Amino acid sequence: MSDENSIFVGSKPVMNYVLACITLFHNGKDEVVIKARGRSISRAVDVAEIVRNRFMSDVYPKEIRIGTETINTESGNPINVSTIEIVLAKK
Amino acid sequence: MSDENSIFVGSKPVMNYVLACITLFHNGKDEVVIKARGRSISRAVDVAEIVRNRFMSDVYPKEIRIGTETINTESGNPINVSTIEIVLAKK
Repeated sequence: MSDENSIFVGSKPVMNYVLACITLFHNGKDEVVIKARGRSISRAVDVAEIVRNRFMSDVYPKEIRIGTETINTESGNPINVSTIEIVLAKK
Repeated sequence: MSDENSIFVGSKPVMNYVLACITLFHNGKDEVVIKARGRSISRAVDVAEIVRNRFMSDVYPKEIRIGTETINTESGNPINVSTIEIVLAKK
């Protein structure tokens, strides 16, 4: 899965990511992968749900993957953070 | 899916829910459903990942569902919140 159809959800307002997602679909992508980690995971779910319920009733969450990444912090102590990938696809 | 094998993740420390989850498996459940909504969604993913990676390598996320619930607030304006259900199952 290339990064061309991926959206990385961070701490910006949720509608920024919703718009980015809709734009990818309108540019011809059949699938868009919404990725996030840590506290942004709940916002990634918000993005998927808002796209699906409010803007594009013809997409659905085809696959949802969760995982763990190890991040090196400035203090030198690596920490584990949870990750999510939500694959939205056209029906 | 009954509530007997469900865990509702809220704002308590993550290890409380990890322990509850492990206890259900040790009491004979083959599947445990970790549920959360709103900002607690990222904590629910943490719970699933910690159970799986640190305590029970024989369980895996069998299914992950996302959705939206409408909640009536005290001010009278209903709001939408995202939900997640992570089904952890024994291999």
